Amino acid sequence: MKPIKVGLLGLGTVGTGVVRIVEKHQSDLESQVGSPIVIEKILVQNKDKARSISIDQHKLTDDVWEIIHNPEIDVIVEVMGGIELTRSYILEALSRGKHIVTANKDLMALHGPEILSKAQEHGCDVLYEASVAGGIPIIRTLIEGFSSDRIMKIMGIVNGTTNYILTKMSQEGADYSEVLKEAQALGYAEADPTSDVEGLDAARKMTILATLGFRANVALEDVDVKGISAISREDILYAKRLGYEVKLLGIAERQDDYISVSVQPTMVKRSHPIASVNGVFNAVYVYGEAVGETMFYGPGAGELPTATSVVADLVAVVKNLKLGVNGKQEKIAYKEKKLKTDEQIASKYYLLLHVADRAGVLARITQAFAEFEVSLESVLQQPNPSNPEAEIIIITHDANKASMKKVLNSLEDMEVVKTIKSVYRVEG
Amino acid sequence: MKPIKVGLLGLGTVGTGVVRIVEKHQSDLESQVGSPIVIEKILVQNKDKARSISIDQHKLTDDVWEIIHNPEIDVIVEVMGGIELTRSYILEALSRGKHIVTANKDLMALHGPEILSKAQEHGCDVLYEASVAGGIPIIRTLIEGFSSDRIMKIMGIVNGTTNYILTKMSQEGADYSEVLKEAQALGYAEADPTSDVEGLDAARKMTILATLGFRANVALEDVDVKGISAISREDILYAKRLGYEVKLLGIAERQDDYISVSVQPTMVKRSHPIASVNGVFNAVYVYGEAVGETMFYGPGAGELPTATSVVADLVAVVKNLKLGVNGKQEKIAYKEKKLKTDEQIASKYYLLLHVADRAGVLARITQAFAEFEVSLESVLQQPNPSNPEAEIIIITHDANKASMKKVLNSLEDMEVVKTIKSVYRVEG
Repeated sequence: MKPIKVGLLGLGTVGTGVVRIVEKHQSDLESQVGSPIVIEKILVQNKDKARSISIDQHKLTDDVWEIIHNPEIDVIVEVMGGIELTRSYILEALSRGKHIVTANKDLMALHGPEILSKAQEHGCDVLYEASVAGGIPIIRTLIEGFSSDRIMKIMGIVNGTTNYILTKMSQEGADYSEVLKEAQALGYAEADPTSDVEGLDAARKMTILATLGFRANVALEDVDVKGISAISREDILYAKRLGYEVKLLGIAERQDDYISVSVQPTMVKRSHPIASVNGVFNAVYVYGEAVGETMFYGPGAGELPTATSVVADLVAVVKNLKLGVNGKQEKIAYKEKKLKTDEQIASKYYLLLHVADRAGVLARITQAFAEFEVSLESVLQQPNPSNPEAEIIIITHDANKASMKKVLNSLEDMEVVKTIKSVYRVEG
Repeated sequence: MKPIKVGLLGLGTVGTGVVRIVEKHQSDLESQVGSPIVIEKILVQNKDKARSISIDQHKLTDDVWEIIHNPEIDVIVEVMGGIELTRSYILEALSRGKHIVTANKDLMALHGPEILSKAQEHGCDVLYEASVAGGIPIIRTLIEGFSSDRIMKIMGIVNGTTNYILTKMSQEGADYSEVLKEAQALGYAEADPTSDVEGLDAARKMTILATLGFRANVALEDVDVKGISAISREDILYAKRLGYEVKLLGIAERQDDYISVSVQPTMVKRSHPIASVNGVFNAVYVYGEAVGETMFYGPGAGELPTATSVVADLVAVVKNLKLGVNGKQEKIAYKEKKLKTDEQIASKYYLLLHVADRAGVLARITQAFAEFEVSLESVLQQPNPSNPEAEIIIITHDANKASMKKVLNSLEDMEVVKTIKSVYRVEG
């Protein structure tokens, strides 16, 4: 049978994994799709670079048009990363009728709607399972597995670097900066870790998941983002003492037709399944109106896990080719996007305050909560071991974000409140 | 657009859920598939029975042929259960070109290959996501999500009843018979609990999962089954003390091209993700050669979770109808089945022995393991609090099943060994 020819853009970590899997599982893939799958051309920056896999030199090219304009090539697998240039390549490839498999979360978060609409116009597939949570098939789960349900909430640990850091801080009582250095040495964090630790990487992934879950085009700027760099050893210690773990969670929620999406450090009750997802692992918790609680767990990155998702997408494209049904993916985002206002976003909160240690302080503070109708689940006042101030730890009942902002403003204005040390969302 | 007409066989728990979801999510479903989905006829035993949902009486029938021979009906959803009669209905429906969605694990475990081959012959779809692990989309995950990978191991908690019982025994230190009664009172266990507690239900589900994971037709009789009815409070107490939880695991493993499938009480290390799956929840852990460790967690039964999977399958059938590609599912089981011999099945074991409390006993016992080359990871001897015998707890290194059988025979023959109280596989 006529082989299916694939052009590969990029031969870094994931690209190498794709080559390995296609080679190693060739006979299984052929049994499934009925044709050999051949990686015909590979775009690289430097053809002469030493590589960990042996590749026919003639397959390598540093000219992207040799791939995009190659009439022999049916499918393009994009694992080079980058945004603007890559976008232009993909749009051009689509206009030439090439199907696309991509692992590029940045591209899909920023230009997903444009790319998917171009694909429909040209009858092409665009699949992007590997763009979120590496080896976990969460995208097909949301599109197909839960097609019948109404997704009400998605909570994701979708960034392995930050989960590694928080896990280490929790397990070893270590400081953030210390663990970050260690993660950098191990290659789990980049030299400039901003995109990971400030939550931007997670926000891009949540943009994609929220769009799929809520069937409305969520944009990156709709995501309220806060990273982990301000989390202290003390925060984690107190969380543990109260029965929580601190996790960087992407949270996408719907109420009626109104949605909100955020990425923020969150105190998760230890009994919640996502609380025990540790190290570089990822997990996506999905709550559906009918199905209830589900969770999908696995490796969020890495050569072979990510390549598994890329090649699974490739298999899907090839099956569609055989059936002649490429480009017939349903339109995902058929709903109008309606964002919640701060009045509509509700959650429990944890606060750690340093306050003056004198009579009447707790009364004044709790009065501020009462004034804006935020009710309290628990309050603990204790002496601060390291200075003459007292510590107050408060966990609220569900409170809306607008009211909480007013409470925080009011606390900030109080002379008796020395520092608002921490404010975290609470889940579970 | 022309509505898609569905015949529903059965209006019990799951059938009721299907009606509810199709009604409640009608506009979402229509947005996805482009046509209304109408439940045209419903097979019931008693048309006059009071029901928890309001249904047009004209849709109810007690004549199955009114559905199967109805030329208007495109898809049949089978949620009536049963094996032989149901099989004959489904084969007849397929021969009439009806597509099938079924939640029937017994049917698929026993007659899956026949039904799937009949479906191919007639260009029909047969989808059965709800047959294993209720609301968890594990079947499409194995077929599509991991199409690129080689699955090496599947471990499943796929029976909620037994997981509920074991969780209660672990959390409350309760006895098996006590918890079983409680589960029966709550409706989590049936009046005759045999199929659940003896592992038969789990074995049927593992037959389906192993077939999908290994792409070979695994039969129910290939599954080595042991249930939970012999598990004592003491077993669970000792397991916990050693850092394990006792779970009824379905385990399907591959080494090279040889496979084994079993259902058995297993001691799972507490750090393993499947160890913390509690209550009636299900989870399927999948280890792929490339992807590594993944786990899929959710409700294993119940009206709406199971119906979610049924209706997701219905959506898939309707999408195929729209594209004109029904019956083009790949052949799943394209590999020859090769079962491991007992010499090839390896795992760690836990043993609890009651022995005579005198000099030289431990030496004789450990000698029996050495003789058959089973090496020991840990050994603990302690007085038995309740009688004059001593207790010996042994955890082995990986040992093959054939050798372990020889060791057990040899222990049984020893006069100093009073009772082999427990033998469990150990994971993690």
